[in-house]
Amino acid sequence: MHITRKVQKILNQYQGDNPGSLTNIAKILMHGKLAGSGKMIILPVDQGFEHGPARSFAQNPKAYDPAYHYQLAIDAGLNAFAAPLGMLEAGARTFAGAIPTILKLNSSNSWAATKDQAITAQINDALRLGCAAVGFTIYPGADNCFNMIEEIQSLANEAKSVGLAVVIWSYPRGSKLTQKGETAIDVTAYAAHMAALLGAHIIKIKPPTNHIEQPEAQKIYQQQNIKIDKLSDRVAHIMQSAFDSKRLVVFSGGSAKSDDELLTEIQGLADGGASGSIIGRNSFQKPKADALKLLSQVIEIYRKS
Amino acid sequence: MHITRKVQKILNQYQGDNPGSLTNIAKILMHGKLAGSGKMIILPVDQGFEHGPARSFAQNPKAYDPAYHYQLAIDAGLNAFAAPLGMLEAGARTFAGAIPTILKLNSSNSWAATKDQAITAQINDALRLGCAAVGFTIYPGADNCFNMIEEIQSLANEAKSVGLAVVIWSYPRGSKLTQKGETAIDVTAYAAHMAALLGAHIIKIKPPTNHIEQPEAQKIYQQQNIKIDKLSDRVAHIMQSAFDSKRLVVFSGGSAKSDDELLTEIQGLADGGASGSIIGRNSFQKPKADALKLLSQVIEIYRKS
Amino acid sequence: MHITRKVQKILNQYQGDNPGSLTNIAKILMHGKLAGSGKMIILPVDQGFEHGPARSFAQNPKAYDPAYHYQLAIDAGLNAFAAPLGMLEAGARTFAGAIPTILKLNSSNSWAATKDQAITAQINDALRLGCAAVGFTIYPGADNCFNMIEEIQSLANEAKSVGLAVVIWSYPRGSKLTQKGETAIDVTAYAAHMAALLGAHIIKIKPPTNHIEQPEAQKIYQQQNIKIDKLSDRVAHIMQSAFDSKRLVVFSGGSAKSDDELLTEIQGLADGGASGSIIGRNSFQKPKADALKLLSQVIEIYRKS
Amino acid sequence: MHITRKVQKILNQYQGDNPGSLTNIAKILMHGKLAGSGKMIILPVDQGFEHGPARSFAQNPKAYDPAYHYQLAIDAGLNAFAAPLGMLEAGARTFAGAIPTILKLNSSNSWAATKDQAITAQINDALRLGCAAVGFTIYPGADNCFNMIEEIQSLANEAKSVGLAVVIWSYPRGSKLTQKGETAIDVTAYAAHMAALLGAHIIKIKPPTNHIEQPEAQKIYQQQNIKIDKLSDRVAHIMQSAFDSKRLVVFSGGSAKSDDELLTEIQGLADGGASGSIIGRNSFQKPKADALKLLSQVIEIYRKS
Amino acid sequence: MHITRKVQKILNQYQGDNPGSLTNIAKILMHGKLAGSGKMIILPVDQGFEHGPARSFAQNPKAYDPAYHYQLAIDAGLNAFAAPLGMLEAGARTFAGAIPTILKLNSSNSWAATKDQAITAQINDALRLGCAAVGFTIYPGADNCFNMIEEIQSLANEAKSVGLAVVIWSYPRGSKLTQKGETAIDVTAYAAHMAALLGAHIIKIKPPTNHIEQPEAQKIYQQQNIKIDKLSDRVAHIMQSAFDSKRLVVFSGGSAKSDDELLTEIQGLADGGASGSIIGRNSFQKPKADALKLLSQVIEIYRKS
Repeated sequence: MHITRKVQKILNQYQGDNPGSLTNIAKILMHGKLAGSGKMIILPVDQGFEHGPARSFAQNPKAYDPAYHYQLAIDAGLNAFAAPLGMLEAGARTFAGAIPTILKLNSSNSWAATKDQAITAQINDALRLGCAAVGFTIYPGADNCFNMIEEIQSLANEAKSVGLAVVIWSYPRGSKLTQKGETAIDVTAYAAHMAALLGAHIIKIKPPTNHIEQPEAQKIYQQQNIKIDKLSDRVAHIMQSAFDSKRLVVFSGGSAKSDDELLTEIQGLADGGASGSIIGRNSFQKPKADALKLLSQVIEIYRKS
Repeated sequence: MHITRKVQKILNQYQGDNPGSLTNIAKILMHGKLAGSGKMIILPVDQGFEHGPARSFAQNPKAYDPAYHYQLAIDAGLNAFAAPLGMLEAGARTFAGAIPTILKLNSSNSWAATKDQAITAQINDALRLGCAAVGFTIYPGADNCFNMIEEIQSLANEAKSVGLAVVIWSYPRGSKLTQKGETAIDVTAYAAHMAALLGAHIIKIKPPTNHIEQPEAQKIYQQQNIKIDKLSDRVAHIMQSAFDSKRLVVFSGGSAKSDDELLTEIQGLADGGASGSIIGRNSFQKPKADALKLLSQVIEIYRKS
Repeated sequence: MHITRKVQKILNQYQGDNPGSLTNIAKILMHGKLAGSGKMIILPVDQGFEHGPARSFAQNPKAYDPAYHYQLAIDAGLNAFAAPLGMLEAGARTFAGAIPTILKLNSSNSWAATKDQAITAQINDALRLGCAAVGFTIYPGADNCFNMIEEIQSLANEAKSVGLAVVIWSYPRGSKLTQKGETAIDVTAYAAHMAALLGAHIIKIKPPTNHIEQPEAQKIYQQQNIKIDKLSDRVAHIMQSAFDSKRLVVFSGGSAKSDDELLTEIQGLADGGASGSIIGRNSFQKPKADALKLLSQVIEIYRKS
Repeated sequence: MHITRKVQKILNQYQGDNPGSLTNIAKILMHGKLAGSGKMIILPVDQGFEHGPARSFAQNPKAYDPAYHYQLAIDAGLNAFAAPLGMLEAGARTFAGAIPTILKLNSSNSWAATKDQAITAQINDALRLGCAAVGFTIYPGADNCFNMIEEIQSLANEAKSVGLAVVIWSYPRGSKLTQKGETAIDVTAYAAHMAALLGAHIIKIKPPTNHIEQPEAQKIYQQQNIKIDKLSDRVAHIMQSAFDSKRLVVFSGGSAKSDDELLTEIQGLADGGASGSIIGRNSFQKPKADALKLLSQVIEIYRKS
Repeated sequence: MHITRKVQKILNQYQGDNPGSLTNIAKILMHGKLAGSGKMIILPVDQGFEHGPARSFAQNPKAYDPAYHYQLAIDAGLNAFAAPLGMLEAGARTFAGAIPTILKLNSSNSWAATKDQAITAQINDALRLGCAAVGFTIYPGADNCFNMIEEIQSLANEAKSVGLAVVIWSYPRGSKLTQKGETAIDVTAYAAHMAALLGAHIIKIKPPTNHIEQPEAQKIYQQQNIKIDKLSDRVAHIMQSAFDSKRLVVFSGGSAKSDDELLTEIQGLADGGASGSIIGRNSFQKPKADALKLLSQVIEIYRKS
C-alpha cells in the first residue's frame, strides 16, 4: 500500500528527525486495518508488570502466553504491539515482520516505594528485536519526575540517532496532584505538551475529565472560555497542546469498562481529533472473539473520523 | 547424548536469544542425571554470604571447602552449581568442564542495612571462569527494587550479548510486604512474572503458600476460582505466570527441613509442572552419603514427572 | 553585511573561545534588525514547560503551533529564537538558516518538588538541529545549585569544544533568599557575575530592583556609594559585574505587563548599557500585529542606544 | 498482509540472526507486488558511480533525479531500492516508509586503478536513513579480494548486531580470471557460495554461462554430470551452492538488452529457482511507461514460478 | 559422564589459561564417542571456501546443505564441527548444544593472489553462536606469515580472555619452501612448534613425510639419529615438538583417498601418539552411511590407542 497523503502530512511534521525515525513512524501508521488513515490502535501489554499476572490475565488465561498478544494484535489488524523486554523476546522470532513492536523501556510495579519506574531495557534491545519504536513512562508531578525526564532524554536521544520512533506515556501523578487531578483537563494538556517538548513522536495520555486542578490554570480556562464540557472538546484542546496537532496523541482506555462505555469514549476521542487509542485490558481480558469484535468497532470509529 | 525433543522444545521458546545463550541453556539441561528430561536440579552455595560460615557449614565441616560443593554437585548428578565469585574461583580449574556453573553476580549479608544486595562479580568473570550462566537476585517489594532491576537489566543485556544464560532469583521482600506475604501465592506468581518480563531464561522462586497478600489480587483469585489449595495447583499457577510455562522456573527448598517434608514438597512441585529445584542447605548440611541419597530421591521424582 | 566594529570589539572580548564559538556569537549579533549594533533581542518560548500550554498560549491560540514562534522571531527581525528540544525539532527544517536558534538544555515545570530543572536535551541535539547556541538555567541560592552548576559546566565545556555559543539563564531563588531578594540589585549582580565566571558567552537575568538583600552587601553598597536608584544605574552596575561589560547581558521582560511599562523598562535597560532583551510572553501572547509593533519599538530603543 | 508460509520458511533459515535482521528481511519479502511470494525484484542504481552519469541516465534524462528511481521502484511494486549514500539521502525523507531501501556501502568507478571498491557509507548511515539492509560488493579473484572480504566481515558484523539485513554483490573479476570466466558457471557458483559463507542474507550474482573456467572444476562437473546446458539448470546449481537454497540469491540483468532477451532470461532464472532479480539499466534507461510494463512482466514470471 | 583422568591430565597442561578456555577444551574432549579418551575427531567444512562448492559437495549433493554437516558430526559421534561463519550461522539454532563448534576465523580461496587468508569472522561471532573454540590458519613460510601471526596473536588474545579455546591450522607454504617441503618432517614439526609457541590449545597439521627440507635441519636429524622412517615415528617426533605432547595435535586427512589408505594412515598417527584427526572431504564427500562407517573405524583406532 502506498503512503497516503494523510500519513505523508503527518511525517512532514517531524522536522527534526532523521528519515530512519520517519520510516518507523510510517511503519506503524501504514500497518493494520487503519493503515494510511493517520490513525492508530496500539495493543499494550505491560499490566503484568504493573499489577501482577493474575489480575492481568486470569480472566482470559490464554493471555498468560506472550504469543497470544502478538497474535491478537495481528488478527485485529492493529498498528503496533507494545510490551516489556521479556514479552517481546518470547515472540520476536516467530512474529518477525508480522506487526510493528514498541519496546517499553521502563516499568513500575505494585510495590513501588516511590512514584517512579525502573529502566528494564536498552536501545540495543530494540534494534536486535527489530522494534519500530521505544516507549517510556514519565510521571509529571512526581518527586522523581526530573530523573525520569533525564532518563527519557538520554534514551530518546540514542533512539533517534539510530532511527527508532519514540513514544512517551505521560501520566501525571505524585504528591503535587490530587487523585482527581491526575486526569484533570489542565493537567492532561500539560502532560501532553511536556511530552511534545521532550521530543516524543507519539504521546500517550489518559482521556481528560472536565476537572481543572490548578488554580492558575482555572483562571485562564475561564478567561479564554476554553471549552471542556464534552470529551471531544477536551481532546481538541489536548491536540492543540500537542503542538497544534503536529504530534500524534493516543489515548488509553484505562481500567476495564463496558464495551458501550468504551465505544462512547472512543467516539468522543475520535470526534476531538485524537490520533488513536491504546487498548490493553479492555481487549486482552476478553475472550478473543469478543476482543476482535470490539477492536473492529473501535477501528471503524477511527476510520470514519 | 543427543538433545532430546523435550529440551529442543524448551530451547525453541527462547526466541529473542542468540544461539550462544541457547547453547548454555542446553548445557545445563543436558547435564547430570536429569539430562534431556527438561527438568533440572541446581546446587546453590551462597549461604555463607547471607548467613556467615558457621551457620552454613559447621554442621558438615567438609562443606567449608569449595571443592566439596563442586564434587557434591558432580557426584549427585545435578545440572549445575551456583555460587559467588570467590567460591567458583576456588575450584574452577580443577572442575573445568565437570559441571555447568552459574556465577551469582550479587549477594547480601547478615548486616545489610537495607533490603538490597551488592554486585560482587561481572560478566567477564563468568566468561573467564567458563560459567554457563549468571545469576542475580531481585527483591520485588523492597525500597531498592528499582535499583536492583536496573542492575540486572544492564548485566543481563551484556550476558546475553556474549551468549550466557541468565538466572533471576526473584525473592519478594521489603516494607510493602508482610513476612507471610513474601511467599504468598499472588506475590510469588507476580515475582516469577516480573523475572520473565525482565528477560530471565531461568527463574528461581520459593514454593508458594496458599496465603493471598494483596486485596486486589484476592478479588480476582476468588472471582476466577483459581485453585491454590494444593501445592501442585499453586505451582501450576506459577508456571502459567511464567509465560504459560515458556520460561524455566525452579523452586528453592528454603530453610532446612526433614527429608520427608522436603520430598513431599518436591512431589508437589513436580506435579505442578515445576522445571526443577534448587537445593542448598538441605543437601550440603548433611553428611555426603545422606545428601546423595536425598538428591537421588529428588531426581527420581522429577524424572518420573 | 560586513562584521561591524562594534561586533568585532565584542568578539575580541571572548579570548578563551575557539573561532567556532565566536562565529556563532557573531551569527546572533549579525542577524535581524539589530544586526551589527552589538545589541540583541531574543524570543524565548519555554513557558509551556514552566506553566503549561493553556497559561502560555490560550490568549493567542496560534501560539500553540511552534511554527508561529519561528515566524514571529523572523518577521520581527529578532536576533535569535530560544526553545526546548521538541519545539525546535518541530520547525528546524522549515526554518533552517532563517533565524539563529538557541536550544534550551534544561527545563522545570509547575510541579517541581525542588528548585531545580531537568536536563531535556544534549549538545548533539544542538548540532543536528543547526543551533547557534545552547541555553541553561541555574538557580543561585537553591539547594541544588552546585548540581546545576556542575551540569552547565559539563555541558558548556562540550558546547564550546564543538564551537557553540553558551547562554546562561541565571535566576536566583531558593531557601537562602527572600522572594524580594530574588531580584535585589546585589543578588542580581552576583548572579550575573557567577554566570560570567562559569564561562557564559551570553547572560540572561531579570531587571534588578533597588532592594539589597544581603547585609554584608548593604554595607559596601553604602560605603562605596554605588548608585542604584534608577534602573539605568542598576543596569550599569550589573554590566560592570559582567566583567566590566565584556560579557553580553540580556534582560528578561518577566511576566506580562502593559506596553508602556515594558517600553519604559527597556529604555532604562538600554540607558544602563544592557546588551539587549529577551521577550517572551509580552510578545507571543499578543495578536501578531501588536507583537510586531511592540518589538519594533523595542528594537528602535536599542538601535538608538 | 500477513506473513505467508513461504516467507516464514525463508526466515526460519536465518538461524544465526537476531529478530531484528529477520524483521528487515521480512520487510523486503513482504513489500510490493511479489509480497509474500518469497521472490523479490530490486532496483539498483549505482551505475552513475560505476560508469558516470551520461552513460547511465542520458537515454532517459528524468533518471538524473534520484526521486525518479524511488518513484519507479514504488510504482512498479518492487521489493526494494538499492543505491549509494548520496542518492538515498536525496529522497529518504520524501519516500520514508514508501519502499525498503538498501544502502550500498562501497562503490567503484571507471578510473579505478585496481579491481577494488571504496567504502562510501557506514552502518549508522543505514540506520539514520531508515534502510532495511546494507549492500557490499566483493570481487572474488581480484588481488584486493581479501581486503574486500575483511571490510564486509567487519561491516556485516556491525549491521547484524543492529538488526539490518546484509546483501553481498559477489562479482568475480581480477587477474586470476579470464573475462569469459567472470560469468562461468563454476566461478559464479563459487562466488555465491563464498558470499553465503561470509554470512550474507541475500546474495547478488550475474546469470551464469555454461563456460567452465577452472580445470579442476571442469573435472568434477563432468564426473558428476552436473547439468549446465540450460540456464535453469545452471541456476538450480547456483541455488544448491547457496546452502541448498537456504540463502536468497538474486540475479542481475547485466548490460541493457532487448526486452524479449531479458524476459527469456528471467524465465530461465525463475525456472531454476532463483529468489529474484535485480534490474537496473534495463528498467531505468527506458521511458517510465516501458519500464513499468517490463517490470510488470518480470514480476508476473516470478509470481507464477 | 565424569571428566576422566586422561582428560584431566590434558587440561592440567594448559597452565596459563583461564578456567573458561579449559572448560571449552573439556567440552570438546568430553563430547562424542571418544569422550574422555583424550582423543578427538573434528569435522571441518571450509572446503567450499578453499575450492568452491562443486569440487567440495557435488559428489554427495546433500552436503550442499550446512545442516547435513552438523548432523553428520552428531551422528558419527565426533568431538566437534569446524566451519566458517555463514555455515555455522545456518545451523547454530537448530543444533544449539548438540555438538561443540569451532568458528573458522579466516579463509582463503582458489584465486588468492598471495599465500594468505582473509579474516572472515570475529570473536563476538563465536560467543553469540555458542562456539567452543575459534580456528585460524597460518602459513609458516609465506611472505605474509608475520601478518598472519600478528592477526592470530590478537584474535587468540581476545578469545582466551573470554574463555574460548584456540585452534591453529599450521600449514607451511610459500616461496621459501618447495612443494615437497610443505609436508617435510622438519617443516611440519617446526610448524607445530610455532603454533604451540603462539599459544594454540589445539594444533592442526598435515601428516608429515620423511622428506627433510632444510639443510641445517638435515644435519641435526642425522646427527641425533631422529627416527623418521615410519609415520608413527614422525608423529611421535611432532608430538615432542608440541611441548613434549603437552599440546593437542590433530592431523588432517588431506585430499580424498581410499578408505584403506586413510585407515592405515590413521593407525600410524594413533601409534605415534597423535591427539586425533580432522577429517573433511574423506567423510562428507561419501554417502552418509559410508561416511559413518569410516568414521566409526577411525574412532575405533583412536579408542584403542
